Amino acid sequence: MSIINTEKPVLVLDERRCKRNIKKMAEKAERAGCRFRPHFKTHQSIEIGKWFKEAGVRGITVSSTGMASYFASAGWNNITIAFPFFRQQLPALSELEKQANLRLFVNSAGDLEALNSELLNDFEVIVEINPDVGRSGIHYQKTDTIRELIQKCEKLAKTTFYGFYVHDGRTYQAKGKTEVENIIQPTISILNGLKSEFPQASITLGDTPSASLLDQFPGIDELTPGNFVFYDWMQVQIGSCSLDDVALFALLPVAQYFSDENRAILHGGATHLSKDFVLTNGNQNFGQLLNFTNSSIKAVQHSFITALSQEHGTLSALPENIDDKSAWICPIHSCLTANLHDHYITTDGKRIEKRILS
Amino acid sequence: MSIINTEKPVLVLDERRCKRNIKKMAEKAERAGCRFRPHFKTHQSIEIGKWFKEAGVRGITVSSTGMASYFASAGWNNITIAFPFFRQQLPALSELEKQANLRLFVNSAGDLEALNSELLNDFEVIVEINPDVGRSGIHYQKTDTIRELIQKCEKLAKTTFYGFYVHDGRTYQAKGKTEVENIIQPTISILNGLKSEFPQASITLGDTPSASLLDQFPGIDELTPGNFVFYDWMQVQIGSCSLDDVALFALLPVAQYFSDENRAILHGGATHLSKDFVLTNGNQNFGQLLNFTNSSIKAVQHSFITALSQEHGTLSALPENIDDKSAWICPIHSCLTANLHDHYITTDGKRIEKRILS
Repeated sequence: MSIINTEKPVLVLDERRCKRNIKKMAEKAERAGCRFRPHFKTHQSIEIGKWFKEAGVRGITVSSTGMASYFASAGWNNITIAFPFFRQQLPALSELEKQANLRLFVNSAGDLEALNSELLNDFEVIVEINPDVGRSGIHYQKTDTIRELIQKCEKLAKTTFYGFYVHDGRTYQAKGKTEVENIIQPTISILNGLKSEFPQASITLGDTPSASLLDQFPGIDELTPGNFVFYDWMQVQIGSCSLDDVALFALLPVAQYFSDENRAILHGGATHLSKDFVLTNGNQNFGQLLNFTNSSIKAVQHSFITALSQEHGTLSALPENIDDKSAWICPIHSCLTANLHDHYITTDGKRIEKRILS
Repeated sequence: MSIINTEKPVLVLDERRCKRNIKKMAEKAERAGCRFRPHFKTHQSIEIGKWFKEAGVRGITVSSTGMASYFASAGWNNITIAFPFFRQQLPALSELEKQANLRLFVNSAGDLEALNSELLNDFEVIVEINPDVGRSGIHYQKTDTIRELIQKCEKLAKTTFYGFYVHDGRTYQAKGKTEVENIIQPTISILNGLKSEFPQASITLGDTPSASLLDQFPGIDELTPGNFVFYDWMQVQIGSCSLDDVALFALLPVAQYFSDENRAILHGGATHLSKDFVLTNGNQNFGQLLNFTNSSIKAVQHSFITALSQEHGTLSALPENIDDKSAWICPIHSCLTANLHDHYITTDGKRIEKRILS
């Protein structure tokens, strides 16, 4: 591959795998009777967005007004902003509504009124549900607040209540299908409980482990996973995918090799990978070494990045006598790794631009 | 301040404090009889570079060829690349040497030969010393390798041996001056031991805690700290500075406030702050809440960011009845936080551009 000799850390994208991940998830959603409105925060690329369009996707999910404008500029005109609305967003939303139909997460009647009076077009409202995980949204037991929000939507001129959304981040701590199911099934029950009380609500499920591992989604109307487009080493550990599904890799120059210590210093630090890690045998793993040949990609057991500083990565427990100029690394958390780069290079050498800076 | 109503997470720079940090460190180096060749990886800004020039700085330190070109384009013509040289850098260095005198970290005689034959101009060579911390460089006990490198420099036409460099990252784990001294004094002794064997060597010390906390630098010829330009909450914890020295803050919109839980969701996640943390009473602290008034900046005790996802930050243990639209956060590790942004806004509203993407 011509990119092997790179001086800079680069992200290499396997286009075939990426398109396969998109197709698989789109088909699964269809099979399950769910709409598919993927989150674009992981790839943040107009070009990769086109691959979703080819797979039939018409509506998307993003996490900021900036990301929404970026994709709206490429013609995406049905956009969910999966982040709590706050008033400082109003000027940006006024611009955005000229290009796209908006679906917004709103948490108070006052915010609904502010949006209703500031925006010119109709918009849809999602009530994000907190299934007791302590992030954003309305706690599922606060049915009075939820009812008040829905009634307010019915009264105001421009608001249509769309439904409930859950991103249950606890599934990212799970290992294997059973653990993911044990976490997400009670959450799905909570959502179905709310649906029996508010039957007009559509129900959206956000996380990648559930979307990847469940076969059936009873009562769920829409899936919005994002990470699955690339997957990563964390998802391999969870069991959401196998390494054969991972579509994004970091190719990092070997800057110094210590043959007597089976250790190398890579040009690839926190500013290229992010500091997310998984624990491997009790040690922090900031990036998994891969053996990358033309016919297969395999993890090199016990060899991973054990320490990261700004631009240095320490790759430990190397097999003996490797003498490569670069190391193929499976990123731990592809969303954060991708965010640190302004482009991808495909395995056949094509450059794919992306947005940077959330 | 006009920036209070920002919709996007922004980095706010206190220009007065930043210039004071630069002046203080430049004066300290002079007092200690050390040359001052600051690392520019933290701020990565040509404009802030000018403040160093005003303080008399003529040579700088960077960590990649990309960062070197960026600053060379602004007229910096004495540049140390404080990262192990590797052969893929040769084309970039050939370009760079047209603009700047280079000082490079070289770890093998073969690399010296490659540089000597590929580069057109003379360049200086640093042997990075590993004081048994397991990152890059040559282990201090390998005096044969060190001697071989120095002798090779003397033989080759374009190489001048400059000296030894140490960045002892263990001081970032210390708390207080005594602990920093207990870590760095043995390292300084190691360097002085090498100097007695190789008296032609200049000795460079890289870390910010030592540069900040030591008063005397026996045997040290040059200081290259970087982080001190902004400092951060980690350095406050180490004791390298007080909060009154911190010059960089994240101003993050409050997206959702839970008055009954004394908790808020900020628009500010791992893509705005980085995932570096310190432990505060045993809990991960991803960003310290500050009380920011016109007359003072104080930490709000017990209130900090306890969880981060891609764009959400969970701010916990808030004082009662706060109703601010934005939160002032002291970044944990300003180098990584700054790397995620393409500009700073000064406290008087001026925009300062910076480089992104290492």
